[in-house]
Amino acid sequence: MSVAWADIAAVRARIAPHLVETPVIRSANLDALTGRRVLIKLETVQHTGAFKFRGAMAKLTGLSPEQQLAGVIAYSTGNHGMAVAEAARRLGIAATVVVPLDTPAVKVARMRESGAEIAQCDRFKENGEEIARSRAAREGRAFVHPFDDEAVIAGQGTLAAEMIDQARAMGESMDALLVNSAGGGFVGGCAVATAQLSPTTGVWSVECTAWDAIRRSIASGRHEDNLAATPSVCDAIQARKPGAAGYAAFKDRLAGAIAVNDAQAIAALRYAFERLRLVVEPGGAVGLAAVLANMLPPEARTIGIVLCGGNVDAERFASWIAQ
Amino acid sequence: MSVAWADIAAVRARIAPHLVETPVIRSANLDALTGRRVLIKLETVQHTGAFKFRGAMAKLTGLSPEQQLAGVIAYSTGNHGMAVAEAARRLGIAATVVVPLDTPAVKVARMRESGAEIAQCDRFKENGEEIARSRAAREGRAFVHPFDDEAVIAGQGTLAAEMIDQARAMGESMDALLVNSAGGGFVGGCAVATAQLSPTTGVWSVECTAWDAIRRSIASGRHEDNLAATPSVCDAIQARKPGAAGYAAFKDRLAGAIAVNDAQAIAALRYAFERLRLVVEPGGAVGLAAVLANMLPPEARTIGIVLCGGNVDAERFASWIAQ
Repeated sequence: MSVAWADIAAVRARIAPHLVETPVIRSANLDALTGRRVLIKLETVQHTGAFKFRGAMAKLTGLSPEQQLAGVIAYSTGNHGMAVAEAARRLGIAATVVVPLDTPAVKVARMRESGAEIAQCDRFKENGEEIARSRAAREGRAFVHPFDDEAVIAGQGTLAAEMIDQARAMGESMDALLVNSAGGGFVGGCAVATAQLSPTTGVWSVECTAWDAIRRSIASGRHEDNLAATPSVCDAIQARKPGAAGYAAFKDRLAGAIAVNDAQAIAALRYAFERLRLVVEPGGAVGLAAVLANMLPPEARTIGIVLCGGNVDAERFASWIAQ
Repeated sequence: MSVAWADIAAVRARIAPHLVETPVIRSANLDALTGRRVLIKLETVQHTGAFKFRGAMAKLTGLSPEQQLAGVIAYSTGNHGMAVAEAARRLGIAATVVVPLDTPAVKVARMRESGAEIAQCDRFKENGEEIARSRAAREGRAFVHPFDDEAVIAGQGTLAAEMIDQARAMGESMDALLVNSAGGGFVGGCAVATAQLSPTTGVWSVECTAWDAIRRSIASGRHEDNLAATPSVCDAIQARKPGAAGYAAFKDRLAGAIAVNDAQAIAALRYAFERLRLVVEPGGAVGLAAVLANMLPPEARTIGIVLCGGNVDAERFASWIAQ
């Protein structure tokens, strides 16, 4: 079974009251610079500052009353954990997030602020996902995976549905929609929604070059992994291997797959700061980076991009913009 | 003669096609922190990154064809000059901006990028406004004042009209609308529009404490100036004296006037970075600062604020967020 349009439509109706309908803007400078029409979705102003809130809310609202009463558990180093914690708070569900010991203190504080219980693990010696999964099984609680889950994928797909509606209201039709990718849940959900609502729009996956399993999967026709990945500044878009559910959703639906390097991602972050007055994390800026680096074919005249997350350490952001 | 609602309505219809309808968002964290409902208008994503584009476009579209052919001239150190240059470019009007020698290079570059001619002056030895005014008279060109001009005030007033409409569409009614103030054009225009469209909304002026002539004018009943002002980080909201046209528009219409200090403005800038993922300049953050510092009466349950500009030097922004 894989995610179908009907799943996304049902989830969209269910979670809409809980979401920020994030704005879509245009920038005269970006259009002039790229020679295209670029629609920019500010998912950075979503609750908890990232699209991950959509998937978390989709998963949690889809649980049975008994499951909601039992509570949920997740493993995360950042955006997913913050999203699960805040979605749980809003729904009155108890949440535990397993976090690595080296998770930035500010992110742990945000999860606690949303009322989540925090459990720490040593990610160099332990498998945090396994710890969370087995604890969930032991305690009869639902485990919320960041991407390899059909409810989560349907939630992420609501972004494309919302953006297609917003583009139409602006009188625009996207030739290409660029989706920041890692575990494949976001791009998979967006590919399913787009195929239904705007079949002439090509959905493109955008990864960082060091973690480009989706690009390699599209090239090889096999489900590739990132087990040999090297470090990248794009911490939010790193997955050991795209999920099976996401892979099923995106594999025959993408127009293409792109990877941008760290320098391109940082240049895009700096552009967003200076020209769009927006805070974007490196992994949230890869779609913008792909457009700025002119990596799309010329026939893609109108391009949609998603600034999908803005949770970035202040010290690192400061050093990047001041370069 | 002073600015009337009919002027703002006419200007709004005229400039709407040229503007970004800037989004209004809410933040669950900000509401929880302040115990209020806060509507946040992202004027930072307006063309040229500030509300000044509204006034510039209002002024330039209101010129006769002969005046448009003759071109315009402005004096500015930043947001106003960028706004005039870009509005002129879009309308095919020649523009000259007189800038002080110590204007940040990036702002001069932005004005040049919009096609403006740049003339430099030494603001410690010369009066830049007088240079621009007399050159305009000599060359038969329109001088575009940053705030003491009824067309400009009407343009700035379109922000309040747009925000009131957006609040209604969200099912909200603002008890208070906080407007970042200096020369009085923005708050004057917003006060006139609000009195017409939403008379139960109190319009508040927000200045920085070092440049608080509007607050002192409201207290004394006289048209006060800032001639004795001391330095402040809020460079975008500093005027030697509020304009006569703005004073006429705001003096009997404000619910109150607030001033925030530099530390409060920087704390608001940092909050916007961390929690709203938005880049705001200190002078653009004073309304947010007033709400964060709880400077509004308790009966103001639903408060509108404007993040009115996001043009900030990268090095300074970096130092502020990393504090």
